[in-house]
Amino acid sequence: MTGMFLRNQWYAAAEADELGQAPVGRVFLGEPVAMYRTSDGTPVALEDRCCHRRAPLSKGKVEGANLRCGYHGFLYDATGRVVWVPGQDKVPPGARVKTYPMLERYGLVWIWMGDPARRDEGLIPEEFRWNMAPGWVSTGARLPVAANHMLLVDNLMDLSHVPFLHAATIGSANDTDPELTWERGPGWVQGTRVGRNLIPTARARALGVNSNMDVTKVMKFTPASNVSIEITQRETGLKPGEAPRWCFHSFILNAMTPETERSCHYFWRSTRDYDVDSAETTALIFKSTTVAFNEDKEMLEAEQRIIDLAPDAPQIDVTGDHGGLQARRIVERLAEAEHGARAAAE
Amino acid sequence: MTGMFLRNQWYAAAEADELGQAPVGRVFLGEPVAMYRTSDGTPVALEDRCCHRRAPLSKGKVEGANLRCGYHGFLYDATGRVVWVPGQDKVPPGARVKTYPMLERYGLVWIWMGDPARRDEGLIPEEFRWNMAPGWVSTGARLPVAANHMLLVDNLMDLSHVPFLHAATIGSANDTDPELTWERGPGWVQGTRVGRNLIPTARARALGVNSNMDVTKVMKFTPASNVSIEITQRETGLKPGEAPRWCFHSFILNAMTPETERSCHYFWRSTRDYDVDSAETTALIFKSTTVAFNEDKEMLEAEQRIIDLAPDAPQIDVTGDHGGLQARRIVERLAEAEHGARAAAE
Amino acid sequence: MTGMFLRNQWYAAAEADELGQAPVGRVFLGEPVAMYRTSDGTPVALEDRCCHRRAPLSKGKVEGANLRCGYHGFLYDATGRVVWVPGQDKVPPGARVKTYPMLERYGLVWIWMGDPARRDEGLIPEEFRWNMAPGWVSTGARLPVAANHMLLVDNLMDLSHVPFLHAATIGSANDTDPELTWERGPGWVQGTRVGRNLIPTARARALGVNSNMDVTKVMKFTPASNVSIEITQRETGLKPGEAPRWCFHSFILNAMTPETERSCHYFWRSTRDYDVDSAETTALIFKSTTVAFNEDKEMLEAEQRIIDLAPDAPQIDVTGDHGGLQARRIVERLAEAEHGARAAAE
Repeated sequence: MTGMFLRNQWYAAAEADELGQAPVGRVFLGEPVAMYRTSDGTPVALEDRCCHRRAPLSKGKVEGANLRCGYHGFLYDATGRVVWVPGQDKVPPGARVKTYPMLERYGLVWIWMGDPARRDEGLIPEEFRWNMAPGWVSTGARLPVAANHMLLVDNLMDLSHVPFLHAATIGSANDTDPELTWERGPGWVQGTRVGRNLIPTARARALGVNSNMDVTKVMKFTPASNVSIEITQRETGLKPGEAPRWCFHSFILNAMTPETERSCHYFWRSTRDYDVDSAETTALIFKSTTVAFNEDKEMLEAEQRIIDLAPDAPQIDVTGDHGGLQARRIVERLAEAEHGARAAAE
Repeated sequence: MTGMFLRNQWYAAAEADELGQAPVGRVFLGEPVAMYRTSDGTPVALEDRCCHRRAPLSKGKVEGANLRCGYHGFLYDATGRVVWVPGQDKVPPGARVKTYPMLERYGLVWIWMGDPARRDEGLIPEEFRWNMAPGWVSTGARLPVAANHMLLVDNLMDLSHVPFLHAATIGSANDTDPELTWERGPGWVQGTRVGRNLIPTARARALGVNSNMDVTKVMKFTPASNVSIEITQRETGLKPGEAPRWCFHSFILNAMTPETERSCHYFWRSTRDYDVDSAETTALIFKSTTVAFNEDKEMLEAEQRIIDLAPDAPQIDVTGDHGGLQARRIVERLAEAEHGARAAAE
Repeated sequence: MTGMFLRNQWYAAAEADELGQAPVGRVFLGEPVAMYRTSDGTPVALEDRCCHRRAPLSKGKVEGANLRCGYHGFLYDATGRVVWVPGQDKVPPGARVKTYPMLERYGLVWIWMGDPARRDEGLIPEEFRWNMAPGWVSTGARLPVAANHMLLVDNLMDLSHVPFLHAATIGSANDTDPELTWERGPGWVQGTRVGRNLIPTARARALGVNSNMDVTKVMKFTPASNVSIEITQRETGLKPGEAPRWCFHSFILNAMTPETERSCHYFWRSTRDYDVDSAETTALIFKSTTVAFNEDKEMLEAEQRIIDLAPDAPQIDVTGDHGGLQARRIVERLAEAEHGARAAAE
């Protein structure tokens, strides 16, 4: 099953401030990974399995650029090579663990799970640039979800769930008849969802909105498993060219990294260009988004349990599923290309 | 393995007062079921798996006679047909889920897990009529048990365990030499167990009994998985025809509905025709029965774990097992008939 | 997999004071065992599965020399034979459970999991005699560990982990360059590990040591799964023949009994011939050993989880692994002999 994951991709591995001198152990694509920063701040990812007795290196200690296993003290450099073993002068040949390329960008640390020679910085999803853009302020978290990562892609590409699942937080009850258009490019699919004259959401009311809103959401999927959503909310009924008296503009940036076939690490960031100096607004957005995304987590984990009871039960697609289906098609084509290439090389 | 369950049978699905406007999700015979009442009180059971993205419908909301999925808002009528989907005017053909016939009777709501065309109200176990009989008062609960439902049938048909497992609650220490007789009819087996001069149980003492008792218990198994036990306790040593100064008469009605091969929903009711106006007596019976049946639950779950360690370990039958063995034979014959019929139809 | 355990061996089953009139249920080598003492104190081990309905006998009650099942009251004598069943005069032929020979020695109760006819008292590991030796005082406990028992053998035979994993308790930070020598005999392997001028451990400091120490540790493996470690700590820099001003001499006796392939019962005893009248020293040793051995438990359980993620991942051996590797070889040879003999007999 793990052969089905895309490997030659960057995956979100950690929020930048999660990594430091204390190693962090996580499973990505079924493989255990130990992550840390060297003393100069460079992020490093090693196979989280000592080559000696298979203890997890993430239970060890960082020493400068190196990581020392917490069991027998084997010392690894940042290339995964053992440079010291206890009780003998020579390090046995072949004493090393796998390393994974890492790249810190846009406030996240990304990991390349495939062939290091094929790594390509251009594949980092550039929509995440809004997370650190000048004049913008962001908040976010990592949320473990016990469901396949593609269920989250489906969720984020089909926002028709928002008025129902998120009625109490970020949904408008009358947001059930949007204009929906789709574009497809090489390696991406993007939808535009326009809702007019929507009742203000609970969050909008908390931000001071008392009248109905027009809302545009632009959802874009890019591989391996990222969805950005640009949201523009403003007063309803503007004539073309008329300036709104108020407008909330934000991006929700979502990166879902598979842990196993049935679980993932969900990294989300909410970034905005209004009220940028207000810690109160940041706190309100963090709180309400956390509540809403836990509504998603609870539903998706229930969905996964129902799927596991009868994995072959059929399902029916409707208009709203276009984006999620296209995303799956993009992933399948990349998987075929990657596995075909891998099979040819073997 | 789920193919081994009897399907063309009524199973207890809920106590009547468990079902209302909030949907309830349970697994019966390995299948997820969402249950609710329509606004006029009719109980409805739908497959608990939205035909769209397989979210459990039991996390949704009742609207009149309909159930709305809590994820994307798909609206189901009580026949399982989708009548509204978000973002489009037409409902796709085939958008529906399975429904299960339900019948409310004797204070329980029963579900038919097999072919709807073959449902037969006559198969509801009529012994449960005592649960709601005029002049009787009852108490009871649903108890989840992590053991195969037939282990509970064995338990209830062989009451020789009572003086040992329930020594502190509803057992008499000297109840080890009963007269035991059996009758077998088409689709049922019944035992009569008479114990004389028994030391009063802890419960009988709490009800004011200070002298020894004669106790008659009539255990009757009917498919799919029901056991009724009629209990008569009165003063010991009566001559034929002599009226007892005191007599406690009750039924314990038990319906065990398989959840999986290793777990079941155990519905029990204790109903009596004495002290019917005493809430205190009802509370005492509820409390002591709950304690006693949790002693069963703990033992049966331990038994299931031992069975799982070595599923093929042999076991030895004794006289007391007659009822449980006959019950298993009845189930096996019905299963053969049902699966034979099903195989012929396929 | 359970076929891979050595069976014709004594395994530690309980600390002597764990067994009494309340039955104890444990799983050894994948088999459920009920243990108790008869009224004269003799330890008894029966298959923990009633021959009637497979309830665990360990949930029953001891009556003199007998054990009564807590479910239906079947009464077993200490040979595993049923001597009473409820509701009938005769006990069915064949109503019995397996028994396991037990032997109480050195403060532990040992169980023979193989052919009773082949049991051999000489196979009890005689190093455990130090646990009860005159002039010595001991402390210890049973620790459940969710890891294969041989991972504990590896751990105890390769003490190079002590300065790292146990830095805060029983390790010296500079104990990384010991003299290490090995001896191998029929059915045992023994290593001698000498460290000189070691910084006193946290425990040694708590016992009043303020200067560096010379430490000799003699680790000896004997089947099925026992490791004794003799430890001598004294002032550093003594000339040959010179008497130390202080010396701490102790044995750590370790018996690891498999529960399953992924879990074991770890019995440890720490016994010493100094400060024998000091309850305070005993408490200090119990506390610090418990902390240290929980460090092992945490690491080994993490190691087991990493192994389970990829059971075939390779590992590299270094000098320190000699003892553990020899121990595994001894076990493998015994297993081949035992399984060969068993195969021939079948």
